[in-house]
Amino acid sequence: MKYVITGGAGFIGSNLAAEFVRAGHEVHVVDNLSTGQARFLTDIDCHLHRIDLCSPTTDLGDIVAGAAAVYHLAANADVRFGWQDRRRDLSQNVIATLNVADACTAAGVRELIFSSTGSVYGQAAVIPTPEDAPYPIQTSLYGAAKSAAEGFLAAYAEAGLLTVTVFRFVSVLGPRYTHGHVIDFIRQLRRDPMRLLVLGDGTQRKSYMHVDDCVAAVSTVRTGEPFSVVNLGTAEYCTVLDSIGWIVDELGLAPVLEFTGGDRGWVGDNPFIWLDTARVRSTGWRPRYTIEASVRHTVSWLMANPWVLDIVDSRSDAQADPGGGR
Amino acid sequence: MKYVITGGAGFIGSNLAAEFVRAGHEVHVVDNLSTGQARFLTDIDCHLHRIDLCSPTTDLGDIVAGAAAVYHLAANADVRFGWQDRRRDLSQNVIATLNVADACTAAGVRELIFSSTGSVYGQAAVIPTPEDAPYPIQTSLYGAAKSAAEGFLAAYAEAGLLTVTVFRFVSVLGPRYTHGHVIDFIRQLRRDPMRLLVLGDGTQRKSYMHVDDCVAAVSTVRTGEPFSVVNLGTAEYCTVLDSIGWIVDELGLAPVLEFTGGDRGWVGDNPFIWLDTARVRSTGWRPRYTIEASVRHTVSWLMANPWVLDIVDSRSDAQADPGGGR
Repeated sequence: MKYVITGGAGFIGSNLAAEFVRAGHEVHVVDNLSTGQARFLTDIDCHLHRIDLCSPTTDLGDIVAGAAAVYHLAANADVRFGWQDRRRDLSQNVIATLNVADACTAAGVRELIFSSTGSVYGQAAVIPTPEDAPYPIQTSLYGAAKSAAEGFLAAYAEAGLLTVTVFRFVSVLGPRYTHGHVIDFIRQLRRDPMRLLVLGDGTQRKSYMHVDDCVAAVSTVRTGEPFSVVNLGTAEYCTVLDSIGWIVDELGLAPVLEFTGGDRGWVGDNPFIWLDTARVRSTGWRPRYTIEASVRHTVSWLMANPWVLDIVDSRSDAQADPGGGR
Repeated sequence: MKYVITGGAGFIGSNLAAEFVRAGHEVHVVDNLSTGQARFLTDIDCHLHRIDLCSPTTDLGDIVAGAAAVYHLAANADVRFGWQDRRRDLSQNVIATLNVADACTAAGVRELIFSSTGSVYGQAAVIPTPEDAPYPIQTSLYGAAKSAAEGFLAAYAEAGLLTVTVFRFVSVLGPRYTHGHVIDFIRQLRRDPMRLLVLGDGTQRKSYMHVDDCVAAVSTVRTGEPFSVVNLGTAEYCTVLDSIGWIVDELGLAPVLEFTGGDRGWVGDNPFIWLDTARVRSTGWRPRYTIEASVRHTVSWLMANPWVLDIVDSRSDAQADPGGGR
């Protein structure tokens, strides 16, 4: 079967590409390599198409034509920096999604899988948060844009143009991980092993999952409905301080912690993210990794692949980089 | 006080402008006159700025500067024709809203009022539908775009940039009404008084409110929160057949009804829209018009202003025009 993965040179996308190639499928990756890494695809026998999805291109139609499904994972994936460029989330997470949807409908591809986020629930009124939680009030441009893209895709499905499965992820960890709190902390500790600056007060509670568990769900879980939304996460959560403990233990360090204070890491941060995953569990899917195992695996992978830390260092000089959230 | 009303030459906007002018305020209307009518403002002492909000303009900043509040009512307001131009709702209802929000924040205007719609609830799981109904699945590009705009504005409010009040309207009726089922039916009956084609089977249940009641709420109801959502509607609903009965009675006609069939008028139509208005009622606001009075008033106003029917006729030659929904 032919599968197209947008953002397929990124963290989750490259793991999904590897899985499909292992299973013998023809995989086409569409990526602008702005945060994706061609190096992630070195050992994966797939086709890489360097295309920016924010500007419609006729090439995209040719690439998706004949695909059994398009996995649209390309996105701005950093919830924190939306206010540095107010239109980035609109462009990269809404307009790019509509460009992919229109390429699919024009090419006769019906099956679209979309990577959304638990951030769409804003500061959730119900925790753990089910898919049909009360209509949320958005707290970040990132969550607003992902929710917007979900809504447009639902309209496409209602109009009979596409069959859409939306996965709302918690933050994902594991091999090829390129952004979030684990990398932020390790980068800090590479510069100064004695000191760690933490956004907020460290008590923010977050849920994480391992990329292998994420890929297993995304590639197999379908409801049979024209439009469905499925939360993905583990049945547990941890605090930022828990995660710091596993990270410094894995590194063999004992830094002094300094806190910026407050109960959230940045504007729009949600101090408690925990998704109700009863729906995905009802399909038989179960996560194989605990949060602790996921954090430790991520640390060991990053230490074995310091080039990723170097790239993120060079890319992030202009951005604030203490960790504390995702 | 200075107030800015985008879409102020349109149906609701011109009624709101009239209300503010009556109260002695300085009113600036921003409208591209694509569906708005300069003639609606003839007797209203306000400033009309002809600007297209889809393309950012520096003029907008000068216009909103010093305003006590900006009422953002400019929009594509027709839920039915989204699929004729898939990007129209994105452009006119999302991007235009962000352009207005950014003009406000740049000019130091904090108070933004946004006209949303009961269509954001999709096919609601709870009826009458409260503001915190279960996270909806969108059924139209129009509803998806309005929900998207709400979400982005919520993020602006969370970031401390704006104080936003979102009003989710049912369909509005009354003087200066320019689109929806009443005008569609009257236009048909002007061409052939003996026959009326109805989208769907006529049993779709809808809720309507009078524009005077809408303006009274929009201009006065505030919650004091940085971001709030308020449903607006009457406490009743009617069927399309009820409304047809009032319209033909008002016109003194007895046409034969023909139905396209099915329980909805068009792709994305919702066969039952009825909003829970407990929140707005808790502020003391009450509608003064019943749905029947609103329908009859709309018919008599349109018959006294046939130029509106002429304009809609000339504009709609390319579009399907049987009534049955809004």
